[in-house]
Amino acid sequence: MIIRSKSLERLISALHRLPGIGPKSAQRLAFHILKSSRSEANELAQAILGAKEKMKSCSVCGNITDSDPCFICDDSTRDGNTICVVEQPQDIFVFEKMGEYKGTYHVLMGALSPLDGVGPDDLKIKDLVTRIEKGKIREVIIATNPNAEGEATATYLSKIIKPLGIKVTRLAQGMPMGGDLEYADEVTLAKALEGRREL
Amino acid sequence: MIIRSKSLERLISALHRLPGIGPKSAQRLAFHILKSSRSEANELAQAILGAKEKMKSCSVCGNITDSDPCFICDDSTRDGNTICVVEQPQDIFVFEKMGEYKGTYHVLMGALSPLDGVGPDDLKIKDLVTRIEKGKIREVIIATNPNAEGEATATYLSKIIKPLGIKVTRLAQGMPMGGDLEYADEVTLAKALEGRREL
Repeated sequence: MIIRSKSLERLISALHRLPGIGPKSAQRLAFHILKSSRSEANELAQAILGAKEKMKSCSVCGNITDSDPCFICDDSTRDGNTICVVEQPQDIFVFEKMGEYKGTYHVLMGALSPLDGVGPDDLKIKDLVTRIEKGKIREVIIATNPNAEGEATATYLSKIIKPLGIKVTRLAQGMPMGGDLEYADEVTLAKALEGRREL
Repeated sequence: MIIRSKSLERLISALHRLPGIGPKSAQRLAFHILKSSRSEANELAQAILGAKEKMKSCSVCGNITDSDPCFICDDSTRDGNTICVVEQPQDIFVFEKMGEYKGTYHVLMGALSPLDGVGPDDLKIKDLVTRIEKGKIREVIIATNPNAEGEATATYLSKIIKPLGIKVTRLAQGMPMGGDLEYADEVTLAKALEGRREL
């Protein structure tokens, strides 16, 4: 790509650094921004700066929020005795969109991954234990991702939390709804078989 | 999506307005920006503002540039007697990447599209005619897109420019290189047949 303009090159490379934005998408987005009105480009830049400025982590659960504690921890109608443990703040949005969960959350900020050098001290596990010891927690639902790192994290957390006399559960694993048996991978199918329920 | 933060909502909706960025991608990008360092977020915002501020249209050809005339119009080693007419500034980058073209360009800023209310006066056609009348142009290569609007624009331009005694050419249409005959659409195949060349 022959680009002889520093400001265009800088914009394309800044966009290219975003996840899932390849060089072609970055170029397309950059040209779109250049074509758009000045107010639209300003709005995008200000939205980035504003969000970065105002959003912080909830000091209780680690959710991304502009008020502390976040609206979930601050909501007295929710069940404060249940904590759902997730890897990332965005996982909370998935749960809230589903709408069936009325407890609180705890964000680990990742999952155990020895290969990537992520150990227990790199995650918000101590904060979770402190919350459990301080509050009247009845159940901890572990909703880490259904992959190697998430599974290892779930096992680790369970070993720490169960001895505190707390019920520890894990999201069910099995066939996704709307899925097709023909296309199921072996691991999912094995999990579905293992977790089969009587009808 | 339950988002109770105005700044996050604002960022997601600003990103969602970009082309090809759906609601899920916008959310993913927003969370990435929130997780990234302050300097990285600043760099993105400043790159947007900087590009928007510095980049303008070349007063000769309409290319997006930070110097006027652009580096192509300003390059005396290029063949100023040949003009390649394109729809958008980004089309110039595609040509320059290919590297085989040594003439100049003219950006129409769109294509004729009566259904969308785009007529000849909405495109930089008058500027093109002025350039042709003023300069010693030998050939105008019409490189508008190979679709209905681009074809109509090419026909229109040809009718205007040919009477000025200028050679008007159009990019060849046919099978794309690396393509597979089995997957060729009928229109492309018909164009390829129509434009067949003796070996």
